[in-house]
Amino acid sequence: MISDLSKLCVHTITTKPWAIEDAVVNYSKAGVKGITIWRNAIEGRDLTKVKSHIANHGLEVVSLCRGGFFPALDTKGRQTAIDDNKRAIDEAAAVGAPHVVLVCGAVPQQSLFESRKQIADGIAAVLPHAKQAGVKLAIEPLHPMYANDRSAVNTLKQANDLCDQLASPLVGVAVDVYHLWWDDSLEQEIKRCGKSGYLFAFHICDWKTPTTDFLNDRGLMGEGCINIPQIRSWVESAGFKGFNEVEIFSNLHWAKCQDSFLQEITQAYLQHS
Amino acid sequence: MISDLSKLCVHTITTKPWAIEDAVVNYSKAGVKGITIWRNAIEGRDLTKVKSHIANHGLEVVSLCRGGFFPALDTKGRQTAIDDNKRAIDEAAAVGAPHVVLVCGAVPQQSLFESRKQIADGIAAVLPHAKQAGVKLAIEPLHPMYANDRSAVNTLKQANDLCDQLASPLVGVAVDVYHLWWDDSLEQEIKRCGKSGYLFAFHICDWKTPTTDFLNDRGLMGEGCINIPQIRSWVESAGFKGFNEVEIFSNLHWAKCQDSFLQEITQAYLQHS
Repeated sequence: MISDLSKLCVHTITTKPWAIEDAVVNYSKAGVKGITIWRNAIEGRDLTKVKSHIANHGLEVVSLCRGGFFPALDTKGRQTAIDDNKRAIDEAAAVGAPHVVLVCGAVPQQSLFESRKQIADGIAAVLPHAKQAGVKLAIEPLHPMYANDRSAVNTLKQANDLCDQLASPLVGVAVDVYHLWWDDSLEQEIKRCGKSGYLFAFHICDWKTPTTDFLNDRGLMGEGCINIPQIRSWVESAGFKGFNEVEIFSNLHWAKCQDSFLQEITQAYLQHS
Repeated sequence: MISDLSKLCVHTITTKPWAIEDAVVNYSKAGVKGITIWRNAIEGRDLTKVKSHIANHGLEVVSLCRGGFFPALDTKGRQTAIDDNKRAIDEAAAVGAPHVVLVCGAVPQQSLFESRKQIADGIAAVLPHAKQAGVKLAIEPLHPMYANDRSAVNTLKQANDLCDQLASPLVGVAVDVYHLWWDDSLEQEIKRCGKSGYLFAFHICDWKTPTTDFLNDRGLMGEGCINIPQIRSWVESAGFKGFNEVEIFSNLHWAKCQDSFLQEITQAYLQHS
């Protein structure tokens, strides 16, 4: 169990009904210490103002979500993705996020092998821009149920292999329990991830039984079957000292009063993480 | 591509609206050569009559679906599962199915490690009964999205490991493209599976984009992103000479005229498998 909220980060998407300005105020009041900014939350905003609003409320910017989606059926599509990732990097720099989380992408019409190659090429193509901006890139392996159209990187082993291949101190991994809890090589790959210096981020939520929606039915910690304290202990043993980021997409929770939901989050964080 | 229907098997669940008696007549008319019987389809039937009805229509019984669901929170629950699996074995013997397909089970309240142990124990407990009946057991690894409550065996590697552990000529594997297509070790594990003599069954269907239901939105071959001919080529290179079993759970397809659907199945089988 966790004794205090000092490592608690909440993703803006978790409290989607709130504008980021309100989310910042409410997180701060609730004792949350970190915020991960989803790009939709800052669309059309003055990023300097967003950054100072966050700092004024004592929150740390943990990540920017998200870049990626590199694979496409033609060169033009892949270039569009590269350009968009450069913009994401610029936004991360502007709000003071140390890294951009990458949902790497996949295209159902082409093989996973080809998509993985395009992902590696895409990341390599934006690396100089990332270096210039001083922003890192965190590859997030996604659950195999998203292999058709969201990510061809579906295990931590694949993400670690990709980091090995890209061999840059700017490229690491975001470990999300929702995507990886089922994998029997998880402990071993978290060790490898830590040892290699790839462990950039740690996301938590829960897997409900039943789960009724492929995207928006994630559970609050404790609502499901994931042994979060165990996975967190692996991550910490691997040397991770960063935030525990609560990332929940849930039609059910979004429909609630978000003040009550945030209270549930802090309680569940202390009891079930 | 496949040149004829001589290796085509259809699961009774694929044409769920049909009683098994009608399914047999219709499959036979359509040129289907094998049938996999789901237990719900023979509930309350005289199994001798079912067997001879199938034989009279020139169909081969390929598998009985399904046993398994071994893990439970208490001894009583695990014994109930063992008893039910013995009944499934008896039913397989009665209809002339060479093996029972096992959906191994999982319990969200316990670790996957514990569930896997209970699965191994459960299979070991029914093995003498299977031997007596002359019926084999085919472990079907299920997609990781079912790890919470349907199967703690989620990769072909885990299924092969379990076969190694149980070390019985009666225990093998059912490879289903829907569950395994995303796995980058699939080709290698199919090779291993064949070399070890574990390759008992091969199931086909497709993964749609988007998929809207966790259970009942499988696609007909060609409707999705799975490279079925490639996986079939791996299976055949590994020495498999059995049927290609069409197993589709789909609210969409079940709502159709099943005669038309069966016609679509035979066409899709020839074009996209």
